[in-house]
Amino acid sequence: MSEYTPPLRDIAFILDHVTPMSDLLSLDAYAGIDRDSVNGVVEEFGRLMADVWAPTNAVGDHEGSHVEGDTVRTATGHREAYQAYQEAGWGSVPFDEAYGGGGFPWLVGIIQQELINSANMALAMAPMLTQGAIDAVLHHGSEAQRETYLRKMVSGEWTGTMNLTEPDAGSDVGALRTKAVRQDDGTYRISGQKIFITFGEHTFTDNIIHLVLARTPDAPAGTKGISLFIVPKFLVNDDGSLGERNDVHVVSVEHKMGIRASPTCVLAYGDNSDGAVGYLVGEENAGMRYMFTMMNNARLGVGVEGLGLAERSYQQALAYARERRQGYAPGAARGEKSAIIEHPDVRRQLLTMKAYTESMRLLCYKVGEQIDIARHGAGEEVRVAAQEMVDLLIPLTKSYCTDLAETVTSMGIQVHGGMGFIEETGAAQHYRDAKITQIYEGTNGIQAMDLVGRKLPMRAGGVYQDQVARMRSTLDQVTAAGERLAPVGRELSAAIDALEDTTGWILSEGMADPVQALSAATPYQRLFAVTVAGWLMAQQALGAIAAIDAGAADSDLAEVKLVTARFFAENLLPQVHGLVAPVKAGKADLFALSADQL
Amino acid sequence: MSEYTPPLRDIAFILDHVTPMSDLLSLDAYAGIDRDSVNGVVEEFGRLMADVWAPTNAVGDHEGSHVEGDTVRTATGHREAYQAYQEAGWGSVPFDEAYGGGGFPWLVGIIQQELINSANMALAMAPMLTQGAIDAVLHHGSEAQRETYLRKMVSGEWTGTMNLTEPDAGSDVGALRTKAVRQDDGTYRISGQKIFITFGEHTFTDNIIHLVLARTPDAPAGTKGISLFIVPKFLVNDDGSLGERNDVHVVSVEHKMGIRASPTCVLAYGDNSDGAVGYLVGEENAGMRYMFTMMNNARLGVGVEGLGLAERSYQQALAYARERRQGYAPGAARGEKSAIIEHPDVRRQLLTMKAYTESMRLLCYKVGEQIDIARHGAGEEVRVAAQEMVDLLIPLTKSYCTDLAETVTSMGIQVHGGMGFIEETGAAQHYRDAKITQIYEGTNGIQAMDLVGRKLPMRAGGVYQDQVARMRSTLDQVTAAGERLAPVGRELSAAIDALEDTTGWILSEGMADPVQALSAATPYQRLFAVTVAGWLMAQQALGAIAAIDAGAADSDLAEVKLVTARFFAENLLPQVHGLVAPVKAGKADLFALSADQL
Repeated sequence: MSEYTPPLRDIAFILDHVTPMSDLLSLDAYAGIDRDSVNGVVEEFGRLMADVWAPTNAVGDHEGSHVEGDTVRTATGHREAYQAYQEAGWGSVPFDEAYGGGGFPWLVGIIQQELINSANMALAMAPMLTQGAIDAVLHHGSEAQRETYLRKMVSGEWTGTMNLTEPDAGSDVGALRTKAVRQDDGTYRISGQKIFITFGEHTFTDNIIHLVLARTPDAPAGTKGISLFIVPKFLVNDDGSLGERNDVHVVSVEHKMGIRASPTCVLAYGDNSDGAVGYLVGEENAGMRYMFTMMNNARLGVGVEGLGLAERSYQQALAYARERRQGYAPGAARGEKSAIIEHPDVRRQLLTMKAYTESMRLLCYKVGEQIDIARHGAGEEVRVAAQEMVDLLIPLTKSYCTDLAETVTSMGIQVHGGMGFIEETGAAQHYRDAKITQIYEGTNGIQAMDLVGRKLPMRAGGVYQDQVARMRSTLDQVTAAGERLAPVGRELSAAIDALEDTTGWILSEGMADPVQALSAATPYQRLFAVTVAGWLMAQQALGAIAAIDAGAADSDLAEVKLVTARFFAENLLPQVHGLVAPVKAGKADLFALSADQL
Repeated sequence: MSEYTPPLRDIAFILDHVTPMSDLLSLDAYAGIDRDSVNGVVEEFGRLMADVWAPTNAVGDHEGSHVEGDTVRTATGHREAYQAYQEAGWGSVPFDEAYGGGGFPWLVGIIQQELINSANMALAMAPMLTQGAIDAVLHHGSEAQRETYLRKMVSGEWTGTMNLTEPDAGSDVGALRTKAVRQDDGTYRISGQKIFITFGEHTFTDNIIHLVLARTPDAPAGTKGISLFIVPKFLVNDDGSLGERNDVHVVSVEHKMGIRASPTCVLAYGDNSDGAVGYLVGEENAGMRYMFTMMNNARLGVGVEGLGLAERSYQQALAYARERRQGYAPGAARGEKSAIIEHPDVRRQLLTMKAYTESMRLLCYKVGEQIDIARHGAGEEVRVAAQEMVDLLIPLTKSYCTDLAETVTSMGIQVHGGMGFIEETGAAQHYRDAKITQIYEGTNGIQAMDLVGRKLPMRAGGVYQDQVARMRSTLDQVTAAGERLAPVGRELSAAIDALEDTTGWILSEGMADPVQALSAATPYQRLFAVTVAGWLMAQQALGAIAAIDAGAADSDLAEVKLVTARFFAENLLPQVHGLVAPVKAGKADLFALSADQL
């Protein structure tokens, strides 16, 4: 059996019946692309992931990455896997054709992200971070900067990094101290130390383009005084050839619980000179704003990491549960022992894993679709509405897919019993890898603050109201579908009510006292996200019924989707009812004790 | 700051106000023991744990254990730490004085277990498994066997192991194949391979007493044909001196995700002979029954592991949150950044960790107290009632304390942000260590099967009814306490109602079809356990009010307990309402798909 099989039928089901790819492809921007070419990308890319990338995952975890001289030695096979990806041009698929991209919808890029993260999340971070750097240069760089860097980053010949964090500036980015001093020639000299720089150094490519946040000497304090710079590992000559080695060097690589194949670097800027050569992106002191424009993509990307890990963990647990025999399941004839998949408790875990994973996929793909519509939808109104939906769903997607990735990968170990705790089994790696996704790109606590502090208030609550209206509209369809979806309708209705109830509390109490809203933010975020997930599972169920009634070729799969939708509705969605009281409990108990009394 | 500080005041609070040690010590069996001597044990033992054991925890994780020749090399300092424990006689505290024990209540042993697991859970497994072996020999061995082995195991001069698992016999113990052939001299020759044998080999002591499950040639199939044997590493001469090396040897040590200092051995019996020399314990084919008598202690012990890890993880996160400064908390003056403990989301995590940990402690100590009463209570009726309560609470305690240890240690990482993912921080180890507790001594799924299949039906539901009556009686007291406990009463009442509702469903549906009960078992187990935890938090709150009203010396701590009780009631206890629907959903969706459709 292959270690990982791209879930092509599940993906196609969404594109056919839930988040229609045909609607996206009808937009002018995608005139040259048809459904077959999308299928071709997904299938071919999936093959590379299954055949070349997935087998490197355990090796990367085992060997990790290590500083060697002035560079980093990555694990066996990782350089080759990256290069196979790069040479086929897979990184360019969802980017603008003007810079050598494939011009495909971003949603296709999200599907690629799912597959690549299932195959080897740690290695996937090299192209993922490059995408972030591309975004920065594309949207905020000068024409000359785009000419110099973009094409090679889109093609994957050069990778990119994002340099935000410093020892005393983590969640509090505004506290960063790296210095940028302007020179007479318009360039800057960057000096300071950055930490947690993913793929900050490696030998995959002959150049690395660092995007670095730093402060000019006269910059205002806090986030308003941060500027963004391009700092290439090797300076680029006017003819595009590589010039001098820049003064940015790897100091060390962290010893982490997971994603061990991904070198998480400490980088020193300007230790051997008056500073590394840096080029200002856009304007001084606008760096934070530029970062914000990339944030949605980055946070969605982390959500997709959760999805990818959940899918792989599920596949592995499922395969084990079909093979491993222990005891007799209820009602099984004596003789050969039962496969553990027949035991009710193992069943429950597998269905929980499956239903959560499907809901993550629906959520990530929905946001991907809306990103495309926000960019290329027909008419300003449509585009604005889509962007609003993206903005609202991003914290929900990031937190939901990463929190539940922990749950799913934990069950992935549990299904293996004692063998799951043995590293050679491989189940434990997914769990160790998953934990970082709850932390980086803004901890899930910070996502919750973003949700209640920035997203709920958008358009005076109008964006939230639109989302509720969409969910109630789906609920009407579910009700109209009759008996087959009765439990789905009942539970979705109750969940939306719980959401409305708690949102009302947050808006009224939080208006009077922001600490109330912040105190309630985490349980509220989960309640909201699970409701949205339940809504999308209901949409998928409606799509399934339509497919069955139309006698579609994937009716067999549609029957499965009906079961997972019911399971989600009856077993997972009701957790919202345990979250209402925590939201409304607010700040009182949280701050009843002093820090010393805790 | 010390790495670990024994929570002496929290422990004393329970012994003074919730699970009164004075009541236990009034029993005849503990006539020679007073409260001061209990305090002395806890404090002195705590000092060894804090000063000697706790500092070995990270080293043990880093170095692990390795086969070296015919033995196992453990991590730096572990042998010395064990010997310091052994030489002070700490392992003997809760055992019978007839074999050199201290004659203290088992509850005192449980408190020791909490401290030792907080200090170094992996190393703690050496004495913990020895306790299991002591139990087996004490209750089922012959007088001669007790004379030969018991005193040295109680003193810790020899350790003990439990050998159940084989590659094809994990949860399904009855499938084991290790052979035991009776010899003319009444001894047996044991041959076969056992896996997952904790501290199966080491150099801490000059002998190891293996307790081994095996089958005689004519034994019935399954669990009815299993016998229990003593197989010492070195045979013991009649004068008590060590004789010949027995034919049991370590083959390998597993590479695990956590508890890496604990050597998890593959042991080969009889590979170089016609079998290792073994001595039958009790009667042939009664081994499974003997195992069952030890199971309560072992499962409670695993629950206490969860408690120990949760407490240590909480202490570490709390210390970090007090020191680490990031951003400004709501309302904080500009200037020095806020300690992250002032941010609402971090507060919520710390209070969740604290409240869960307190509830685990209450639950473990309550079971410990009932074990003592079951053994030494005044009158048969009292003893039987206590044993019933132990039997009912064991699956709840094991699953609750281990599932929530995962939650708490995950938050312990999360509070550290990105640093939590770096191994040197130490937060990740607790999380990696915790995962095994959900798996061994019966996975939590097996605990749930035990709960609905064996425990609920006890005395035709009477044991369950007694537990509900106890909880409702506490609820009456809470109600009488008035405003200070109003939220506690409200939420506890709703939780008990949810428990009664779902129990009714399980009893009626499960009577008609056992698969219904088994399918509902896991969410039901959590619902039941959280309700019991809420009941004990309410009891602690009542104790706190009594302490405050009496002007007790620990009134300051009592005020803290009131807050954690309210926080638990409003934020954690309501999760039961998300579990009612999953229980009642039963088997339908679980078995709607075939194994191939999953």
